[in-house]
Amino acid sequence: MTFEEMWADLAPIGRSSDSGGYFRQPWASAETELRTWFAGAAEARGLRVETDPLGNQVAWWDVGSGPAVLTGSHLDSVLDGGAYDGPLGVVSGLAAIDELRSRGVVPSRPVGVSVFAEEEGSRFGLACLGSRLATGTLDWDTARELRDRNGVFLPDALAAAGLGSSVPGPWSELASVGCFVELHVEQGRDLVDRGAAVGVASGIWPHGRYRFDFAGEANHAGTTVMADRRDPMLTYAMTALAANKQARLADVRATFGRVQVTPNGTNAVPSAVAAWLDARADTGAALEELVSAVTRQARDRAERDGTSLSVTAESVSDLVSFDADLAARLAADHAVGDWPVIPTAAGHDAGILSAAGIPTAMLFVRNPTGISHSPAEEATMADCLVGVSALADTLERLAS
Amino acid sequence: MTFEEMWADLAPIGRSSDSGGYFRQPWASAETELRTWFAGAAEARGLRVETDPLGNQVAWWDVGSGPAVLTGSHLDSVLDGGAYDGPLGVVSGLAAIDELRSRGVVPSRPVGVSVFAEEEGSRFGLACLGSRLATGTLDWDTARELRDRNGVFLPDALAAAGLGSSVPGPWSELASVGCFVELHVEQGRDLVDRGAAVGVASGIWPHGRYRFDFAGEANHAGTTVMADRRDPMLTYAMTALAANKQARLADVRATFGRVQVTPNGTNAVPSAVAAWLDARADTGAALEELVSAVTRQARDRAERDGTSLSVTAESVSDLVSFDADLAARLAADHAVGDWPVIPTAAGHDAGILSAAGIPTAMLFVRNPTGISHSPAEEATMADCLVGVSALADTLERLAS
Repeated sequence: MTFEEMWADLAPIGRSSDSGGYFRQPWASAETELRTWFAGAAEARGLRVETDPLGNQVAWWDVGSGPAVLTGSHLDSVLDGGAYDGPLGVVSGLAAIDELRSRGVVPSRPVGVSVFAEEEGSRFGLACLGSRLATGTLDWDTARELRDRNGVFLPDALAAAGLGSSVPGPWSELASVGCFVELHVEQGRDLVDRGAAVGVASGIWPHGRYRFDFAGEANHAGTTVMADRRDPMLTYAMTALAANKQARLADVRATFGRVQVTPNGTNAVPSAVAAWLDARADTGAALEELVSAVTRQARDRAERDGTSLSVTAESVSDLVSFDADLAARLAADHAVGDWPVIPTAAGHDAGILSAAGIPTAMLFVRNPTGISHSPAEEATMADCLVGVSALADTLERLAS
Repeated sequence: MTFEEMWADLAPIGRSSDSGGYFRQPWASAETELRTWFAGAAEARGLRVETDPLGNQVAWWDVGSGPAVLTGSHLDSVLDGGAYDGPLGVVSGLAAIDELRSRGVVPSRPVGVSVFAEEEGSRFGLACLGSRLATGTLDWDTARELRDRNGVFLPDALAAAGLGSSVPGPWSELASVGCFVELHVEQGRDLVDRGAAVGVASGIWPHGRYRFDFAGEANHAGTTVMADRRDPMLTYAMTALAANKQARLADVRATFGRVQVTPNGTNAVPSAVAAWLDARADTGAALEELVSAVTRQARDRAERDGTSLSVTAESVSDLVSFDADLAARLAADHAVGDWPVIPTAAGHDAGILSAAGIPTAMLFVRNPTGISHSPAEEATMADCLVGVSALADTLERLAS
């Protein structure tokens, strides 16, 4: 099964016919179908598939001995996401094994292709949930309390997907992993500007998700005079604008992409607005400054609006610097010249594994528009195939 | 069954134990229960109950002859609404009949207590749906295309509630209605300021609901540099602030209480934001000026954000001036002195019936905080009972 054939297999799964985007939320039907597809594609290659109680998967090529080389990514998507974010790394991992075999390469160490669950945090709000649990960065006592938007607890979601029969926890397998490489579509246009089909990541910006709870007083939208209102929508609106302005000034990133209004009726002043700030910056200090500047402005406005505000950091990830020697080794001495080494502001399972002490690298594949987390996300088939070869080269270097 | 007993019967129906507010959306379980309750309470009084295919109800006291006197209100609520908005008028109508009977009054004309469906427009977005169809202001061909937030069409919602076996349409009964009186909790503090337990309405401000559709481009919240974004959340946020400012300046009302974000994910710049403007003003010209000023500012901002905007007027109601002679007649010569005559910015079924040519009046009952469309909506039991007596007085004047 070629890369193109695998890609065609995946194309319809979880795709919205309205938007053309993907809804591959973890532990729901589309993702379950993807998990089954992955196991089948791995078994067809004679790979040994392991699935943990959370649904994290690894397909092992049991060759050689010593510390394993792991590659992979994820199959879940954001709500209405693109085709490439995640699946490109998984499909490229399988295709790279095919390429190594057709080159006649027999690695001297085991090679695995991994799929981590809920990388996007689209259902339970915590990104990289699968890799956090697998590395022990997150414990099950905390994770089991997570609830999705419908109030479903994580253990119940797992049970509904036929998983979770034993307690999810740190992955014994990871102790024998010598290094991890994640291939991913670029979520930006650095490689376009550099004229390169692939690049190597230097690190991941610090980033976090912060829940802003604005509380006011529900009231009648017609009869309540403007001066008597305590309208949390106004405090939120000003905060969203302030976050944008602050991010522009500091050349960092701030986004309010998710909002939940109570009661969300046309003719009622809301009693509450919850909104999630996604903030990213090049240093931890800049991230803190960004979030505290936005919080400060929100509190000032809340005072004027007669509303109140509480801010909860739902997840914060420190700066990840990938193994610099490893990145340099992967980037150098290719037929096409060195691959560029570039940073990213996107979080990845690779960041979690790196923080857990596993030497980690990332390869990026060029994205013509830079658009991601959108149905408009793109990569050319030619660049995808260059990516597969680059991953095969990388695995060959690491596993020999 | 006294007013207090009826009030206690209704208290638990559709009440959220979390907020203490009411979720009595039309053609769902709580509202169906309320409809059954109303029929039972009416039949216990020997009143004849009629229910039309939409679920509008009238309980008739078949006495006398000639044009009937109708009173009543609604039993549905906004999302997380208060106990009084609607039910107070219905329960007071039944209690006023009890009071007339205990006074030994035999009206010379039929007296009816009505309940109109979907007054709040909380489910299908169009306020006063029941009275609009009953008066023929809205035709069934338009109404049958309405969909709720889950995409359910109105006819299917009716069928699920055991209604709609024949086509809902204008009410033949209305031809024989000589006048309509709606008693309602005040949604403001005019009566508090005037020290009066009840008042009479002079009219209803022009008001409308306008859907603002902001469209941009979905993208990754981490990797997309701020300058490259086309983020509709920003255009919306600025519009919400502009609407508030405009309303303050012109001493009118503007509210964005309902928002729907696509895809509504924390780590994605939204592709679209839909938001509903509730706008009200003392004159039609002031309302138009308000909506066009907000739209103008929204379009200017959309241009800067690289987003687009379309505005749809979902419903617009003209100024309602209630029958001035009738109001004066009801307000004068009471034991406690004249009742104050005050305007309101809230829409009511009474406005629809008035516009349809039926001489109409409204009585308001004092609301200590002025808060409405909120679990905090209040009226004292003493004032409610004054309201029942006032309604009984009014029916006695009108039906004799």
